[in-house]
Amino acid sequence: MQDLKDTLVRVGCLALVTLMLAVQAEAAVVSYDWNVDYMNAAPDCVQKLVLAVNGQFPSPTIRAVEGDTVVVQVTNHIPTEGVSFHWHGIHQRGTPYYDGAAYVSQCPINPGETFTYRFKVDKAGTYFYHGHFGLQRSGGIYGSLIVDLPAGKKEPFSYDAELSIILNDWWHKSVYEQELGLNSVPFKFVGEPQSLLIEGRGRYNCSLLPQNATTAPPGCLVCNSTDPRCAPHVLPVTPGKTYRLRIASVASLSSLNFILEGHKMTVVQADARNVQPFVVDNLDVYSGQSYDVLFTANQDASKNYWASINVRGRKPATPTGLAILQYLPNPANLLPTTAAPVSPVWNDTATSVALAKKIYANVDCEASPPKKSHRTVVILGTQNNIEGRIKWALNNISYVHNPTPVLAALKYKIRGVIDAAPPPNSPVKNYDVYSPPSAAFRNASYGSPVYIFKKDIVVDVIVQNANTLSTPNNSEIHPWHLHGHDFWVMGYGDGLFDLKKDVASFNLVDPPLRNTVAVFPNGWVAIRFVADNPGVWPFHCHVEPHFYMGMGTVFAEGIHKLPSLPKETLGCGLTKRRL
Amino acid sequence: MQDLKDTLVRVGCLALVTLMLAVQAEAAVVSYDWNVDYMNAAPDCVQKLVLAVNGQFPSPTIRAVEGDTVVVQVTNHIPTEGVSFHWHGIHQRGTPYYDGAAYVSQCPINPGETFTYRFKVDKAGTYFYHGHFGLQRSGGIYGSLIVDLPAGKKEPFSYDAELSIILNDWWHKSVYEQELGLNSVPFKFVGEPQSLLIEGRGRYNCSLLPQNATTAPPGCLVCNSTDPRCAPHVLPVTPGKTYRLRIASVASLSSLNFILEGHKMTVVQADARNVQPFVVDNLDVYSGQSYDVLFTANQDASKNYWASINVRGRKPATPTGLAILQYLPNPANLLPTTAAPVSPVWNDTATSVALAKKIYANVDCEASPPKKSHRTVVILGTQNNIEGRIKWALNNISYVHNPTPVLAALKYKIRGVIDAAPPPNSPVKNYDVYSPPSAAFRNASYGSPVYIFKKDIVVDVIVQNANTLSTPNNSEIHPWHLHGHDFWVMGYGDGLFDLKKDVASFNLVDPPLRNTVAVFPNGWVAIRFVADNPGVWPFHCHVEPHFYMGMGTVFAEGIHKLPSLPKETLGCGLTKRRL
Repeated sequence: MQDLKDTLVRVGCLALVTLMLAVQAEAAVVSYDWNVDYMNAAPDCVQKLVLAVNGQFPSPTIRAVEGDTVVVQVTNHIPTEGVSFHWHGIHQRGTPYYDGAAYVSQCPINPGETFTYRFKVDKAGTYFYHGHFGLQRSGGIYGSLIVDLPAGKKEPFSYDAELSIILNDWWHKSVYEQELGLNSVPFKFVGEPQSLLIEGRGRYNCSLLPQNATTAPPGCLVCNSTDPRCAPHVLPVTPGKTYRLRIASVASLSSLNFILEGHKMTVVQADARNVQPFVVDNLDVYSGQSYDVLFTANQDASKNYWASINVRGRKPATPTGLAILQYLPNPANLLPTTAAPVSPVWNDTATSVALAKKIYANVDCEASPPKKSHRTVVILGTQNNIEGRIKWALNNISYVHNPTPVLAALKYKIRGVIDAAPPPNSPVKNYDVYSPPSAAFRNASYGSPVYIFKKDIVVDVIVQNANTLSTPNNSEIHPWHLHGHDFWVMGYGDGLFDLKKDVASFNLVDPPLRNTVAVFPNGWVAIRFVADNPGVWPFHCHVEPHFYMGMGTVFAEGIHKLPSLPKETLGCGLTKRRL
Repeated sequence: MQDLKDTLVRVGCLALVTLMLAVQAEAAVVSYDWNVDYMNAAPDCVQKLVLAVNGQFPSPTIRAVEGDTVVVQVTNHIPTEGVSFHWHGIHQRGTPYYDGAAYVSQCPINPGETFTYRFKVDKAGTYFYHGHFGLQRSGGIYGSLIVDLPAGKKEPFSYDAELSIILNDWWHKSVYEQELGLNSVPFKFVGEPQSLLIEGRGRYNCSLLPQNATTAPPGCLVCNSTDPRCAPHVLPVTPGKTYRLRIASVASLSSLNFILEGHKMTVVQADARNVQPFVVDNLDVYSGQSYDVLFTANQDASKNYWASINVRGRKPATPTGLAILQYLPNPANLLPTTAAPVSPVWNDTATSVALAKKIYANVDCEASPPKKSHRTVVILGTQNNIEGRIKWALNNISYVHNPTPVLAALKYKIRGVIDAAPPPNSPVKNYDVYSPPSAAFRNASYGSPVYIFKKDIVVDVIVQNANTLSTPNNSEIHPWHLHGHDFWVMGYGDGLFDLKKDVASFNLVDPPLRNTVAVFPNGWVAIRFVADNPGVWPFHCHVEPHFYMGMGTVFAEGIHKLPSLPKETLGCGLTKRRL
């Protein structure tokens, strides 16, 4: 089967070339009219105020064809909050001002304002979008963005039909209370999520049910509320058919492990990029990542099955998130009589690392990296305590947003927005990544650093994980996301990165292209990208409270080529002007 | 005693003139540095997220001397919400852009921005300030603003010392949930307040205790929580001394009746304007109003007494709000053994009207009105149902904020912000104010009307109350507040205002000057002012959800004399500019 897949890959990807010109001519404009407002939702049967687009939670799905221009007109009806929308994985080539990161690429959209995003989707695949201001992603603003191949182009894999789910974790406390807790002295952590959501549906009432409770009454595995808003999501399949399942995670905090009970999954894409297909029983999906997997409905067709997510990387205190894999014509409410699927133990890091290292690019479809880089930046991510506040910092700087967009500051040379001094290229030598930070790294400083890269150079970024403030050998998983780019994942390692030794271990042949990659506890991950997209691009931990607490920075490139900025992206901070 | 007061008045006010020039030379700049952020507060022992200034609830008191310039530098640390501050009662002569009404006089202050208000306080008295964006006043942003007479100037009354309280009503639901409910189809009313606050302290646990329960255990009359944030406010007095008590109400919804148990109060100022002193046992304070009363601590000095507030005008479902009038040297926690004071029955409108009609200007200190007006506007306030949403409208238009400040729209002639057609000068004739609105008035339209007045003309505004949507003879009290001006209260009446007959009844001699006046159920109130303050001035019901639901409009005058607008007030809506 693997050989067959490889053949398909070559046929599919090589066939693309001849059709390219014809396809581009057909590009269309796909328009959406969105109204953002508060709404009551009850995704796990507990009602909560959420931010919603057009009264939907999750937000509506965007669907376009490769080469199309997507136009999203957003009107903000929230009484006093600004908003912004980030199109996660879309490169915004030529339109860096529509990347949607508040105070980086644009001013937030004020209450009452209408703002029109307009961008090209230049590569088919599974994407998503979400709020990118404060904790508004956790607040409810997220949805799928699916880009199809145009007629005449083929994926390097085949399937009969497709399904799509977005994963999330969920709290009952408002994001306003969560934000306050994160800023408080002492720090008040909201705690582990109350529930895990598959396509906006979860369960809460059975929170204390152990994951492996085989004697659990089936009625306790799903919400038995009569509220249709919290009925489990259903994935209907026809026996014998093969499905492409699009999986994305916008989780606020949790690393999630996905299982399709009784079914093997063949991973074919990661972050909308083709990978060498490999088969898994379960799949780690970090926040900010997407995977496309194939599975065949080849099990006992008299039953339905669980689709499930469990927390990994943090000691779970949340019941398994469940959806129903419905074998047609069984009814959707024919619940599996089995217990919820059990994921690998939460702190079995080795299994997670092994999975990450299984991912290779399908080099028939995807480019290999340049053999050398022009610049290497080592970014050490530490947990800090600044004047009693728990923060995260990169090379000792905890990122703070200024109310002037970084893009405007660079384009128009506005002083006092980004740090005057370039941020450190690397941390101190011999940093002990297995112990809590020393005083110097514990007391990081606040800043707004921007790494400025010459246009078109090849950049290596080493993200170096470190120990938390608590006890030795305590380190968290951080999924790192880069805006405006896909990057090659050149390698992973344990402990402190060694520039001489570890660069030699980089995979120069078939490293996967991604936009989000996990750095594992006490280890490092190396990425490489070409700085060929004029703009300013946040590079940050996709755990929303971590970025909120400073774990991010901004990359800038091609500043002299930056386009003129639409006035609707301006008006805040130092971009106000007299009339 | 009344004669003595009258004498004092004349002496005090006449003495002012000779000192004026000397005083003005001494004007100072009084500066405040404020940080706005979320905070947890428990004003009635139930913790809730509030908006707070410098970690204080209520917000800090501003204290300045007549003629001073107050400078308030506000930095907004709220993660995603804009804010604005309205200085209630301050005329902002020459600085209309610092009036603080979001989307009328300025853009909201974005998260992360610093905005500096700078305005002159040109008349001594009891003022206050509050948030003026969405429901942010209910959200927690409010505080006292007290302007003292300069050395050498005397009030027309005398006292030994002073005390100050701000009254409010309080809900446990977040203002975000309240806003969602107000916008929902069907309408979801948050219900009557959980507690009433005196200087930010209230009680909740004994909500079901009847107001007149003489057998109630004293421990149930105040919060017996150990949380010091909800201990009752204390007003310490020395036996035998006379006090000036400053009372202001920022209530979201409730009309409040204030009682100082066992003590008579002499009202000497209303909305910072001198009135002919009169004695009361209890005092109605409508939201947006302030009163200065004198009382003498002449009761049994071995006891402490209640200061209390009860709801009037709506069927109360909230326990009496209580503070402690402490007779020194009794300890503050020596609780009165008496039941909470009982206010007049909530629907005894006659008593409220009678009190309102007792208020006359002290004409030795305050100007009489011009004898005639140049323009009369009759504003009919109705409750409406627009496409399933409950709204309030004036002359059939329910006010909607545009994200471009009205001030900028008029100053820079920006089209599409305010309604192109002038709003109606008067409603239809023979409107039945005792019945629910007919279809035409039920289905009001949305709009952004601005009444434009020629500079320096004398304007009469008749606010005509009407029946609610529910049943005949059902009508609410609305306290009407005008920014940028004090107005004379020319008269009150029942039923439909009759232009010919009722104008003849106006008090041309000693009507009180105010900035907020109540219109009573099914009746009207007439006010007169001189349009001599170039700017744009909201005129709206001070019940915060009512204005939120459209019960307001904007008056503009002296447009050709409008000053240039500081750029920090711009940047939203159509005031964005290319750089």
